[in-house]
Amino acid sequence: MRKTTIILAILAFATGLQAQYSPYANKIRLDWDLEYRLPGKSRTQVTEATVPGAVQLDIARAEKYGPYYYNDNWKDYLWMEDQYFTYRTEFERPSTGSNARIFFVSGGIDYEFDILLNGNKLLHQEGMFTPVSLELTGDLSENNILEVRIYPVPKMHQVPADRSQAAQSIKPAVSYSWDWHPRLIPSGIWQESFLEIRQESYIREALIHYTLDKDRSAALIDLDISGVQLQGQEVIWKIRDANDQVVASKIIKPGSDQLRISTRLEQLKLWWPHDHGTPYLYNSALEVRNADNELLQIKEEYIGFREVKLVMNEGAWNEPQGFPKSRSVPPAQVEINGRRIFAKGTNWVNPEIFPGIITDERYDELTDRAVEANFNMLRVWGGGIVNKEAFYRLCDEKGLMVWQEFPLACNNYRSTPEFMEVLEQEAVSIIKALRNHPCITIWSGGNELFNSWSGMTDQSLALRKLNSLCLELDPNTPYINTSPLMGMGHGHYVFRDMDTGEEVYSMMARAHFTAYTEFGMPSPSSIEVLKTIIPANELWPPRPNSAWEDHHAYNAWVGNTWLMQDMIEDYFGETRSLRELVDNGQLLQVEGYKAIYEEARRQKPYASMALNWCFNEPWPTAANNSLINWPNIPKPAFRAVSDACRPVLASARIKKLEWREGERFETDLYMLNDRYRSIPPGRVRVTLVAEGNGELVLLNWDHRDLNPNENLAGPTARGILPKWNTDRFRLVLEVDGHPEYNSEYTLLYQPKQQPVSNPATLNQ
Amino acid sequence: MRKTTIILAILAFATGLQAQYSPYANKIRLDWDLEYRLPGKSRTQVTEATVPGAVQLDIARAEKYGPYYYNDNWKDYLWMEDQYFTYRTEFERPSTGSNARIFFVSGGIDYEFDILLNGNKLLHQEGMFTPVSLELTGDLSENNILEVRIYPVPKMHQVPADRSQAAQSIKPAVSYSWDWHPRLIPSGIWQESFLEIRQESYIREALIHYTLDKDRSAALIDLDISGVQLQGQEVIWKIRDANDQVVASKIIKPGSDQLRISTRLEQLKLWWPHDHGTPYLYNSALEVRNADNELLQIKEEYIGFREVKLVMNEGAWNEPQGFPKSRSVPPAQVEINGRRIFAKGTNWVNPEIFPGIITDERYDELTDRAVEANFNMLRVWGGGIVNKEAFYRLCDEKGLMVWQEFPLACNNYRSTPEFMEVLEQEAVSIIKALRNHPCITIWSGGNELFNSWSGMTDQSLALRKLNSLCLELDPNTPYINTSPLMGMGHGHYVFRDMDTGEEVYSMMARAHFTAYTEFGMPSPSSIEVLKTIIPANELWPPRPNSAWEDHHAYNAWVGNTWLMQDMIEDYFGETRSLRELVDNGQLLQVEGYKAIYEEARRQKPYASMALNWCFNEPWPTAANNSLINWPNIPKPAFRAVSDACRPVLASARIKKLEWREGERFETDLYMLNDRYRSIPPGRVRVTLVAEGNGELVLLNWDHRDLNPNENLAGPTARGILPKWNTDRFRLVLEVDGHPEYNSEYTLLYQPKQQPVSNPATLNQ
Repeated sequence: MRKTTIILAILAFATGLQAQYSPYANKIRLDWDLEYRLPGKSRTQVTEATVPGAVQLDIARAEKYGPYYYNDNWKDYLWMEDQYFTYRTEFERPSTGSNARIFFVSGGIDYEFDILLNGNKLLHQEGMFTPVSLELTGDLSENNILEVRIYPVPKMHQVPADRSQAAQSIKPAVSYSWDWHPRLIPSGIWQESFLEIRQESYIREALIHYTLDKDRSAALIDLDISGVQLQGQEVIWKIRDANDQVVASKIIKPGSDQLRISTRLEQLKLWWPHDHGTPYLYNSALEVRNADNELLQIKEEYIGFREVKLVMNEGAWNEPQGFPKSRSVPPAQVEINGRRIFAKGTNWVNPEIFPGIITDERYDELTDRAVEANFNMLRVWGGGIVNKEAFYRLCDEKGLMVWQEFPLACNNYRSTPEFMEVLEQEAVSIIKALRNHPCITIWSGGNELFNSWSGMTDQSLALRKLNSLCLELDPNTPYINTSPLMGMGHGHYVFRDMDTGEEVYSMMARAHFTAYTEFGMPSPSSIEVLKTIIPANELWPPRPNSAWEDHHAYNAWVGNTWLMQDMIEDYFGETRSLRELVDNGQLLQVEGYKAIYEEARRQKPYASMALNWCFNEPWPTAANNSLINWPNIPKPAFRAVSDACRPVLASARIKKLEWREGERFETDLYMLNDRYRSIPPGRVRVTLVAEGNGELVLLNWDHRDLNPNENLAGPTARGILPKWNTDRFRLVLEVDGHPEYNSEYTLLYQPKQQPVSNPATLNQ
Repeated sequence: MRKTTIILAILAFATGLQAQYSPYANKIRLDWDLEYRLPGKSRTQVTEATVPGAVQLDIARAEKYGPYYYNDNWKDYLWMEDQYFTYRTEFERPSTGSNARIFFVSGGIDYEFDILLNGNKLLHQEGMFTPVSLELTGDLSENNILEVRIYPVPKMHQVPADRSQAAQSIKPAVSYSWDWHPRLIPSGIWQESFLEIRQESYIREALIHYTLDKDRSAALIDLDISGVQLQGQEVIWKIRDANDQVVASKIIKPGSDQLRISTRLEQLKLWWPHDHGTPYLYNSALEVRNADNELLQIKEEYIGFREVKLVMNEGAWNEPQGFPKSRSVPPAQVEINGRRIFAKGTNWVNPEIFPGIITDERYDELTDRAVEANFNMLRVWGGGIVNKEAFYRLCDEKGLMVWQEFPLACNNYRSTPEFMEVLEQEAVSIIKALRNHPCITIWSGGNELFNSWSGMTDQSLALRKLNSLCLELDPNTPYINTSPLMGMGHGHYVFRDMDTGEEVYSMMARAHFTAYTEFGMPSPSSIEVLKTIIPANELWPPRPNSAWEDHHAYNAWVGNTWLMQDMIEDYFGETRSLRELVDNGQLLQVEGYKAIYEEARRQKPYASMALNWCFNEPWPTAANNSLINWPNIPKPAFRAVSDACRPVLASARIKKLEWREGERFETDLYMLNDRYRSIPPGRVRVTLVAEGNGELVLLNWDHRDLNPNENLAGPTARGILPKWNTDRFRLVLEVDGHPEYNSEYTLLYQPKQQPVSNPATLNQ
């Protein structure tokens, strides 16, 4: 057993706990061991534990497992699912002032656990998102042993061994296996954990809420404090602007029993998504000082003032027509500070299989990527975790809107009393932790709960409870029960439907949705990534029942997902090398994603949202819909999507991928503008370019000026495809004097004499 | 001023207050005067007031107005909308025991009011559904004046003077004028009101809730008592079955601070809708007795044990197909005690314009009619009032399911803090008053709130609050935000669409809805009714700007509703008399309603509900969709609908109303069975009958046995229409040995030489 060295330290860094910073709190770091028992062994093993982390990683390190992301190494971890594990630490009673109290504090322990001090159980808890703040004071001896006993991962049943096992817990379902996630279920202490010495006047919770003036130029700010007992102390509340200037200040004098302070802030700077303004943040600092003006506690957090609404999509009240008449769709149009904003973004999944090892740096670099992709919204998908506080702080700072789902996905979560109790506890913790982040734009009960594969309905008491809790604790942020709702679309996830053969181009052109909240386009990962996960002798040719399948190239979703070599070859002919397979597959991803994002944008204002499935991935896949390979390696589609999401661009509605010599090429032209400012008149030059074969100018479109946030539909460009000696060509849109608005699209070309390889596209 | 004679009486009848009976309470009747001021007069008038009632009726009596339902007399009442009125009563301090307390109790006062005792304001309240229980004890003198000051009716704005004025109150919107309701806005004391002497140990609230065993054969019943202070008293709780046998009994001994009593009931008899079993009720009686075993208080109520759910309609999980994929529809299938029940019923509207004068007898005879119509569900429409307690007690007893809407309709109720406060108060009162009635099957936020003419959305804080309150106070009864929801249909309300000319037959045949929660079919009222509301010289011919229009024959809804003489004449030729107009219009209503009810039933199991618009009416209309004229005069369609809603019947899908000589007649045949028992094989004889012209046998269909709750689709019957000398004929379905399953349909006939009068039906 390792013994913690007691250092009464003032830790300089934020803890992430409860979305609030406590840099001046007295915290004591603990060093932990982990006790476990190997399968078939009677003796227990002990190893050093990394906290935060996961028991699986500690054991893998101790037992010298290979990397979990390589080949089929994930199978090595399966035995751990049904075991108990014990974290153990030893420490001396800290020397403190007479009135100080000692707490064990943890931001989160995954999933069910007991906490024991010197052999006495002080706490049992189910739920990884509810922080632990456990007073030890009266139970401490001179020398102490603190244990955290982790239960087996929650399973509603043993068979089938899939996500349905998670249907009676608030354990993120993804780790029970998904079409891009192996069966690898983490457990253990996953958030910062430490001893904390609190003075008697410790403020446990401080809730800031504000009311904006009607014109949003000022705010009334209320601060509610709970848990404090002021005797000789005073509380000082200061609000600082982004230049560190104090713009408001209030004091609660010693002896006061006033637990609400209010202040007004004039000349308010609002928080905006990064593509519509500055994501302006104020700092709120709450200091507790004693009679000698010594700082006993400081609670800091950031405030971003914004008004967020879901309002009716333009034109949506006109539907449905005729009788019998049903209801109109629910609103899906995000409005921030009175401005209707087209949400361009993506579905965010766990950046690691083991949430305990997600670093602030990983969050930082991935949110940087989101901004680089011209995204303004991240949907934190309900199959995964609610992220650590750093993620939301970064989204606040970078002006990224967050659609936050509760961790329920693709299951029928039945409202048993036991489940409801844990759900309420976890939901309250989640809402309280996140509600003060201005990035939080939409609460959602979870993922795809109202579809056949989940089987939940609006009558679910669990979802009614989530709606009710959000109303109570965060009434000014929209809540939806799930995604998709009526009028929202999920899918498709392939370039061409496996049954109908319909391509993404026409499928999207005839789609009529208020929001495209998931759509995917698979591609193989780059060779460099593949080499890190697939043994060299399995790399070529790819085949099922190999590391390719372990990494989701085969039998991942319906049909031959996600590698889809047959479809790739249908378009490009027989593949002769891994390089060719990857290049052609990635080209389909590039063109497919561009087609969807741009078509969704062309459907503005009725359509108001385009979020692809998915942004990142928690381990390196062999093939997936992601734009970024784990841990942070963009695919070619990342750049293409970034282009498709530029605030202003020229855009063409593509009819199909494959064209033949002599065929009449046609494409509808648009100028897209998501900015709230006018774009002057301009000229768009429309050309078909066949590398080494010259080019064909189709049209020069002189467009009028674009109003703020207005798309402009232009003419249809047409031309007969000449005889070229090539198998592909590009449609190029060039905007005079504004190369930053240019767009281009790669298309396939068939000389006349050759038969078309894919009968399904013959008559399109 | 009238002086109340003090009689310390034990009133023998239930008060309707808070859905609980208090027959042994000491109540003192009060006699009231009403003070009002006529327009343009400075002096106030005083008249005797009828309580419960309405100030409008008291003044009309005093000022000798004609009946408000005659001609345009409703206009006489408009001046009263913006006035204050004062009810006043004088009484001596009742002589009571030393610890007794005196309360002023009222079941409801409409809408905003002050209560003053001897000139001192003791209460201000907004909201007519929250009972008043105001302690007067300490404020009483020897002689007392109690006043209730009624405010002007709530108006969000002065212009436009329509239902939108009700959009910031919980005042039922209908009285601000509707397509079948004049502008006539009631106010005043509308529920039983009296003084009450309460002993110290008075039980204010007793909540019964129960948990059924999984097999529903037994129940655990909990009783929570609040407001009681037991000293020398004991509380005895007895549950009696329908034979008055005590089946459970518990005692709370004096001095106990136990406020929850529990008991188990075995061999439970469940409550069922009348067409699926017995609406079995138990009686719960709670007696408070003193040490001498004297009865101080008794609280009685009825308990019906049932499990109610909204479950997914059969087949609905298979939709939507394809990608992008939206959600599946919300469930609309009522399940009672595990049995899926097709809900046949109607929309219930206020039986009187002035709710204060609705009698128990009116409720009794109208709910009898509902049973007679083979209805099992009443939707209490959100434009009207929440009914008096007697209505729900009668629905409990008669096995009628109630879909109860909160009183919000066709407005955008904005969630201002002021509105939210009144909404919460009223909703809590409504839920507490009704939740223990087994008839309550669905809570709904209100009527048509998610359509363009209302403009509310799922994001409405008001609706989220109602959902939340229902979850908290009555979690086991389904809640929906509004009707129609996705998958539910409202309308059409005419026999033939005014724009497309499509008839009800084909419109319904192509409709695909889980629930038809409103559909109408207008007809003129019978001549006997018309004569009571329209001056003799205006009766024929009908014309706009007359009493006909006052009573909704013209400009009531879109187009030429509700008389629709042009459509009637389009089918039947020029009308020569009032009798002919009424007969032909009523025939369209008969055939139209039959067509919709039967088609909705043929669409079972995907469809699960058919509720017409509307059942009754609050005053006599000249033309309306109602089945019953005010106060209780069935139209011919009432009988037709009753036939269409028989549990078992032969049914034909009609293609159109008008047929021509020599044309091939076609109709699809069905046997419909809503009973949960088998129907043996049988023979259906299908005949066309032209009175005086003989008949044409089309088919004998020998059908197999019908499974419980199963419809059977049969063959299509066909035949060439012979030459007849008639303008109409009947399609007759006769079931051998079961005349109670027979059905018939009236159709129109055109000899060959005549041109068809309506071009729109030419090619059908």
